[in-house]
Amino acid sequence: MTSERESVLRVGAVVGIRPETIETYCDLHANPWPEVQAATSRAGISNYSIFLMPEKNLLFSYYEYRGADRAADARELAQNPVMKDWWALCRPCQVPLVTVEGSRRWTDLRPIFFQK
Amino acid sequence: MTSERESVLRVGAVVGIRPETIETYCDLHANPWPEVQAATSRAGISNYSIFLMPEKNLLFSYYEYRGADRAADARELAQNPVMKDWWALCRPCQVPLVTVEGSRRWTDLRPIFFQK
Repeated sequence: MTSERESVLRVGAVVGIRPETIETYCDLHANPWPEVQAATSRAGISNYSIFLMPEKNLLFSYYEYRGADRAADARELAQNPVMKDWWALCRPCQVPLVTVEGSRRWTDLRPIFFQK
Repeated sequence: MTSERESVLRVGAVVGIRPETIETYCDLHANPWPEVQAATSRAGISNYSIFLMPEKNLLFSYYEYRGADRAADARELAQNPVMKDWWALCRPCQVPLVTVEGSRRWTDLRPIFFQK
């Protein structure tokens, strides 16, 4: 059970998707690799949803981060060979919506409202 | 505490925002009316976040619905005078991204992935 006093960071992010890869991307995420799920869970990520807006070729993701150091957890994830293999399949499907550095695709959104 | 067997519907949605109304919309949602929060909670909605993407004038929302009949709860909300007053302030800020019926603004997205 989650303590009410536990710190939770709610992360919303968006990225474009190449229309010709929507089926591939959905198939990948309908059958996620257990090692990827274990690694993201260890990195403090939970209650993780991805949604598709096919009319606009957009993906929207929402997850909750309950770790102590999001940047450190992200760096560790980025060094995981299984994650690299997974992202090598996902990234070619994605189109950044704003200018991004390096291999990052998703753009974090600005939280403006929360209701428990 | 939430039962593991309880049915949860995770809803992601998107809507455009008129850039000249972003400040108004953010102010409204930084100071939500307690009656609106009580009504949406009674309608089965919880863990409700709204995110802004200022670069693209988009709003994304995520919430969890734990009621028994989402359509019936939505109809009851729509008849609540406080909700009507609240939406009368919010709706002029919003731009539907796809053709919608009636006063609806948000477009529900298609869930393609969930990880607990």
